[in-house]
Amino acid sequence: MTANIPDIVIGRLPIYLRALSRLAVEGHEVTSSHELGRRLGISSAQIRKDLSHFGGFGKQGTGYQISYLVEQLRQVLKVDQEWEVALIGAGDLGTALMHYKGFSDRGFRIACVFDNAPQKIGKKIGDLDIHAIADMQSVIKERGIKIAMIAVPAEKAQEVADKLIEAGVQAILNYAPMTLNVPGNVKVQYIDPVVNMQRMTFYLV
Amino acid sequence: MTANIPDIVIGRLPIYLRALSRLAVEGHEVTSSHELGRRLGISSAQIRKDLSHFGGFGKQGTGYQISYLVEQLRQVLKVDQEWEVALIGAGDLGTALMHYKGFSDRGFRIACVFDNAPQKIGKKIGDLDIHAIADMQSVIKERGIKIAMIAVPAEKAQEVADKLIEAGVQAILNYAPMTLNVPGNVKVQYIDPVVNMQRMTFYLV
Repeated sequence: MTANIPDIVIGRLPIYLRALSRLAVEGHEVTSSHELGRRLGISSAQIRKDLSHFGGFGKQGTGYQISYLVEQLRQVLKVDQEWEVALIGAGDLGTALMHYKGFSDRGFRIACVFDNAPQKIGKKIGDLDIHAIADMQSVIKERGIKIAMIAVPAEKAQEVADKLIEAGVQAILNYAPMTLNVPGNVKVQYIDPVVNMQRMTFYLV
Repeated sequence: MTANIPDIVIGRLPIYLRALSRLAVEGHEVTSSHELGRRLGISSAQIRKDLSHFGGFGKQGTGYQISYLVEQLRQVLKVDQEWEVALIGAGDLGTALMHYKGFSDRGFRIACVFDNAPQKIGKKIGDLDIHAIADMQSVIKERGIKIAMIAVPAEKAQEVADKLIEAGVQAILNYAPMTLNVPGNVKVQYIDPVVNMQRMTFYLV
């Protein structure tokens, strides 16, 4: 049922899930495509069409049952489980990611941290020991980890990515400011705040 | 000449600029749409078409002069200047952003930091004093700041955004995990690592 959903629709589902979770926290039990659309700046027609890919959500006129829709979206996105994530890089950014509280209730937990700096290896961040990057592949294979966050300098990122993929990682969130070369079966998402800001300066007057 | 460029093309230009800057650092002087495409996983035809919006870059067969193209892209994106950025939120994330070295040579400088926690106000991060959010609007107006980064909890983000926009901010990079409501003349970009990871888990096997 979910096999042929376009990438662009999949890309919007986490945004719907986030907004619906927030509505639930605010005490709402039902919502409508109009209310969601208003909150997200997306047309209600688009939202109805996107959600119709999964069939059976909401009925004309009665709106969406939020808890049901949240559960369906979590299943579709496979975040009705907790994924172990490997973090590579224990600098300022890696440390901030370790302290970030927002992963666990949304499907993710940083399960291991790696860095190459001798003065960091063996130290703790939060309740995790920092391991050497030399041990990365064996830990990832042993734990069957599929997702990694790369928070190392740009010039090291491709090498780290190659090793991660060799060890079985299928999804990479890359904070290094460069584009990775990966095989077609590996997903990469990028976080580079400068790219985001440069996408806006063009429009500034 | 650059007035009618589609949003989606503008969105790719920072990626081209980043890759070209990297090629320059690696010592290259010229490149081709094929080389760029290979590095970025984008077709060379797409790259030629995107860059043709600005006219006159590169000639058939001779490739692109990297330094010239970098300069053109910096002008088009208006990052041939340094933008002052206001940072709101001096928690773990705000602190990591303050320490991030990658802003300055790409067009941005965090010029002021605001937080509401009494124990933080008046302290320093890097060489900046943390100011109270109560002073945010006057500082932003006085300095004519147009760009802000929001790194406060989700439940505070809309209120902060409203105040920023009232003070003249036209572009917001929002790290709070929620969608902002803003007027049509204000640009927002979002960074939420969980959304990025949830966009990949669907595909994991």
